Amino acid sequence: MTIADDLARRVATEMHAREGTAPAWGLTLDEATEGYARVRMTLRADMLNGLGTGHGGMIFALADTAFAYACNSRNQATVAQQASIHFLSAPREGDVLIAEAREDAVIGRTGSYRVDVRTADGRPVAQFQGLSRAIGGPVLPIEE
Amino acid sequence: MTIADDLARRVATEMHAREGTAPAWGLTLDEATEGYARVRMTLRADMLNGLGTGHGGMIFALADTAFAYACNSRNQATVAQQASIHFLSAPREGDVLIAEAREDAVIGRTGSYRVDVRTADGRPVAQFQGLSRAIGGPVLPIEE
Amino acid sequence: MTIADDLARRVATEMHAREGTAPAWGLTLDEATEGYARVRMTLRADMLNGLGTGHGGMIFALADTAFAYACNSRNQATVAQQASIHFLSAPREGDVLIAEAREDAVIGRTGSYRVDVRTADGRPVAQFQGLSRAIGGPVLPIEE
Amino acid sequence: MTIADDLARRVATEMHAREGTAPAWGLTLDEATEGYARVRMTLRADMLNGLGTGHGGMIFALADTAFAYACNSRNQATVAQQASIHFLSAPREGDVLIAEAREDAVIGRTGSYRVDVRTADGRPVAQFQGLSRAIGGPVLPIEE
Repeated sequence: MTIADDLARRVATEMHAREGTAPAWGLTLDEATEGYARVRMTLRADMLNGLGTGHGGMIFALADTAFAYACNSRNQATVAQQASIHFLSAPREGDVLIAEAREDAVIGRTGSYRVDVRTADGRPVAQFQGLSRAIGGPVLPIEE
Repeated sequence: MTIADDLARRVATEMHAREGTAPAWGLTLDEATEGYARVRMTLRADMLNGLGTGHGGMIFALADTAFAYACNSRNQATVAQQASIHFLSAPREGDVLIAEAREDAVIGRTGSYRVDVRTADGRPVAQFQGLSRAIGGPVLPIEE
Repeated sequence: MTIADDLARRVATEMHAREGTAPAWGLTLDEATEGYARVRMTLRADMLNGLGTGHGGMIFALADTAFAYACNSRNQATVAQQASIHFLSAPREGDVLIAEAREDAVIGRTGSYRVDVRTADGRPVAQFQGLSRAIGGPVLPIEE
Repeated sequence: MTIADDLARRVATEMHAREGTAPAWGLTLDEATEGYARVRMTLRADMLNGLGTGHGGMIFALADTAFAYACNSRNQATVAQQASIHFLSAPREGDVLIAEAREDAVIGRTGSYRVDVRTADGRPVAQFQGLSRAIGGPVLPIEE
């Protein structure tokens, strides 16, 4: 593991631990490396819409979490400015959803990321695109 | 109240009752009329990100719910194909968030909606734009 | 006309005069007030895609121009960071397209705008949402 | 070259030949394979905004063209429903812009694509995400 990837893993682990949402959603951090993160979540009954399929808000929330870990991976505090999502299929209760975030470009304080959301057996659920902005300061304390 | 607005209110009430997410998020339906819906939610500790502010996923989820009620208001089952969100400010625990969805255009099966998310005292939190597609069939049973 | 609306009109007129694209596209500035702009363009043969309908790039370009005038209307130089567009119907050669940009929210340096694109007889063509960022400095020289 | 890639190249070549915009914008088709296309364009004076940099509309138009070639690559007529773009840096007159479109997911009639726009020396200009819908029928006549 490179130093950059180790830092990314530590930042994501810390963000995951601080979030109120991670335990509320049963969110698991699978992997985090520089500019990349993969998270998963099992769709529960309290995450379904009126049609009995996964609520778009929960699919977005999972993707947005992977995006947040990826865009903070260099330990520079970074926030989402905008995101867009394509809903491709409707997952069901009990489906395990996996979101993988990747960095497409970073220039100055601005970054562009994409997140692929699929079921555990590979069916496309959503494609997400996020725009990030570094706001200054670290996520983890800088070590001496 | 017009017949169209009464139908919209009944559809939204039924959708809200069927959703697993509405009680999970403490979501209140304020108003629904033809092509319009207003919902509210109080930000809880389990809706916060690692910075201690409202998780983008929950802000999107609230907006997406208002969008769903608005685009189903004519009792034609309709789903989200895409949505985009601008994050404008970071709400805090205890803030009451109000999302208002309005219809911008409908042509054939396709609709374009916008949702304004603000705190109860009017501070802009997010602007959302959603693309819908009618999939056929009613939400509520058609009455004789 | 208010002072704010007069400034908006002068800024948009100046931007329109400086642009290489305005004469290239035959773009007309109809109106500009604070946080608002309306522009129009007639679809020509050199603006059509392979299906013989208006190229999505030209529809976006018209909307993006209205957005630029609206978000610079207070004479603070402002650029687009992101935009999203819903394509609702396909205009034909000779159609006059009208784009109206309106401000949804401004907070600090960031603004959220929407643009409605229709044919002259009111058919919806596209809905656009743009995110702006003020970069400092005026568009027009500040008068003594 | 596979049969699928040869078909993609022939479809893109035909689309490029039919478009009014391709000669108007001086657009070159570099390569097209199944689910992929790369196009380029040199920024001219008539493509600049009032700041003297590339108009966002032209950057989008280039990306949208690459998207169109990629999502029609299997010779099934397909249109754009929605697109979102992140503007990352401002190109100058004379810059050669290269747009590469790739397929992220296709499910039923719906596809999700991303387009990376860079200058010839690799500087990120924009990231684009497009949602497509197959409308039935071929682009090229089906051969006996």
